[in-house]
Amino acid sequence: MKPTIRDVAKMAGVSISTVSRVMNSPESVVEAKRSRVLEAIEKLQYQPNAFARGLIYRKSFTLGLLIPDIENMYFAGIIRGMQDACVKLGYSLMICNTDRDKDRLLSYVDAFREKQVDGIVFASDILYPEYYEKLTACRIPFVLLSSHSDEFEVPSVEVDDEEAAYEAVKFLIELGHREIGMIGFNHVNSVSGPPRYEGFVRAMKEGGLTHNIEKVAYAEHRFEQAYHATHELFSAHPDITAVFCVADEFAMGTISYLKDRNILVPGQVSVVGFDNLRMANMFIPKLTTVAQPIYELGYRAAEKLHELLTTGSVKVPKEMMKHKLIVRESSRQR
Amino acid sequence: MKPTIRDVAKMAGVSISTVSRVMNSPESVVEAKRSRVLEAIEKLQYQPNAFARGLIYRKSFTLGLLIPDIENMYFAGIIRGMQDACVKLGYSLMICNTDRDKDRLLSYVDAFREKQVDGIVFASDILYPEYYEKLTACRIPFVLLSSHSDEFEVPSVEVDDEEAAYEAVKFLIELGHREIGMIGFNHVNSVSGPPRYEGFVRAMKEGGLTHNIEKVAYAEHRFEQAYHATHELFSAHPDITAVFCVADEFAMGTISYLKDRNILVPGQVSVVGFDNLRMANMFIPKLTTVAQPIYELGYRAAEKLHELLTTGSVKVPKEMMKHKLIVRESSRQR
Repeated sequence: MKPTIRDVAKMAGVSISTVSRVMNSPESVVEAKRSRVLEAIEKLQYQPNAFARGLIYRKSFTLGLLIPDIENMYFAGIIRGMQDACVKLGYSLMICNTDRDKDRLLSYVDAFREKQVDGIVFASDILYPEYYEKLTACRIPFVLLSSHSDEFEVPSVEVDDEEAAYEAVKFLIELGHREIGMIGFNHVNSVSGPPRYEGFVRAMKEGGLTHNIEKVAYAEHRFEQAYHATHELFSAHPDITAVFCVADEFAMGTISYLKDRNILVPGQVSVVGFDNLRMANMFIPKLTTVAQPIYELGYRAAEKLHELLTTGSVKVPKEMMKHKLIVRESSRQR
Repeated sequence: MKPTIRDVAKMAGVSISTVSRVMNSPESVVEAKRSRVLEAIEKLQYQPNAFARGLIYRKSFTLGLLIPDIENMYFAGIIRGMQDACVKLGYSLMICNTDRDKDRLLSYVDAFREKQVDGIVFASDILYPEYYEKLTACRIPFVLLSSHSDEFEVPSVEVDDEEAAYEAVKFLIELGHREIGMIGFNHVNSVSGPPRYEGFVRAMKEGGLTHNIEKVAYAEHRFEQAYHATHELFSAHPDITAVFCVADEFAMGTISYLKDRNILVPGQVSVVGFDNLRMANMFIPKLTTVAQPIYELGYRAAEKLHELLTTGSVKVPKEMMKHKLIVRESSRQR
């Protein structure tokens, strides 16, 4: 006979409601009890029946996604991947756009709780203690996407930003470039800004090109800002022959600026982006870029959240997905 | 003393629940009763208190948005506008991506009903009878965005697609172009495909250039498809010197194709897009395009839905917002 939640509770020596909590908001159960429950689930090979779970625990079979900026093309791919996984796993997906606004984010968490969303994917934003506390208080299990937390134990899926940036810059050095600049994310409220800058610095140190470390201009998340940052960068360092941009949007803004100044890309300046947006292959010139597996990141985040919701934990708490440098037209041998 | 719902019901000679239904899903009330109620609301200057409404009618102060394709950059601007209006009006916004999949759309309507969403904005898709019946059966008030219905009485907000396309093509004719092609939307499941084609045809007839009417290739909604459609178009009609694309995405795909064939834009071929995406001004060359007031369309749709939810009707059932031709670099005198 198939084991029931009652069997799990008995074996673990806890109440049924504790088992339920472990499955639904594991953070709310003390470590000792939690591991006893998880052990029992494993030993008994307990598999909660999805439909019964819905009836018993008022599951809504809806997942929530919090994204910081709907106009960023990066999230379009994320959403597509996450939605396909949701369809496969039997969830509806509801998306809320926080605009990186703290109050809006917190109120969306409330809205998700009222709507009895089963779990949340929290994308591309720093997990401030205030957010963590709110989510935990609402007892909504969640995972981080294109983000991670050193401070709290929250499952996450992302790429290795430092390594990816390092490889992009190393590629430019190997093309013979010696005067290399960077258009980076502001470090203040960006998850990936600091590690991508560190990757840039590592490549420079390794290449004996530390004089470039200061050749960085920062932008928020839009073309237009990257356009202006490029103006800053080239005004201060007109000798630059290659630019590493930490986003494809930035690369497009950079190329647009250079084009407006009649500077040829890649003839005079090479540009490498980051993300491999759907747009990257259609831009003129087509972008050389560090591809993130955008669709797969979204897909995997939904799977991970599902794993957390159904088993109470995840096998790989901090998962790194593979990036890949894609060489197209915007870069050239120096 | 402020009038109450009871006063409205008394004056209209209907039950309180009928007044409530008129305010919350007017389609479910027969025309005769509905107009008596609306008259009474107007005469009494009845204004339902938002908070009380929430308690009495189980309002959730959440609006739902159904969009057909999250990867289409057009919707990013729509969502931003709609969200800003939601913030102003005190709603949360939940977005679901239907992928133009009938079953998915219907299941999202169910999800919205379960979550007690107050109303829905249904964007950019044909309102098939099946959808109308579902939404009406669920008693969720809704408005159409970048769509309209000739068949059903549903409030809508959009631009005048026929006129906008006509003006874009007329502009190309006035530049001296005589061999003009078009990259259009498939007519089968597109709301704006047929009227934009009609605008193209009208301009051709008016300009005595009816030989161009057959110079049309169709694409779904992506760059890549427009790229291939452009190949088709130029293979069949290599003499074309100007292309009207019914979307900026298509214009980018078209320009990318021409660039790959070493055909200069605008040197040899002029290209005009449609939408004025945020990207249009950063592309190379910058796109000449028919601007839709994308942000304002989203904003207005939320306001209209709010008007419907709070008053039971809308003052302007079929609202047209203004488009505007923006001339940039991708077009030139012949």
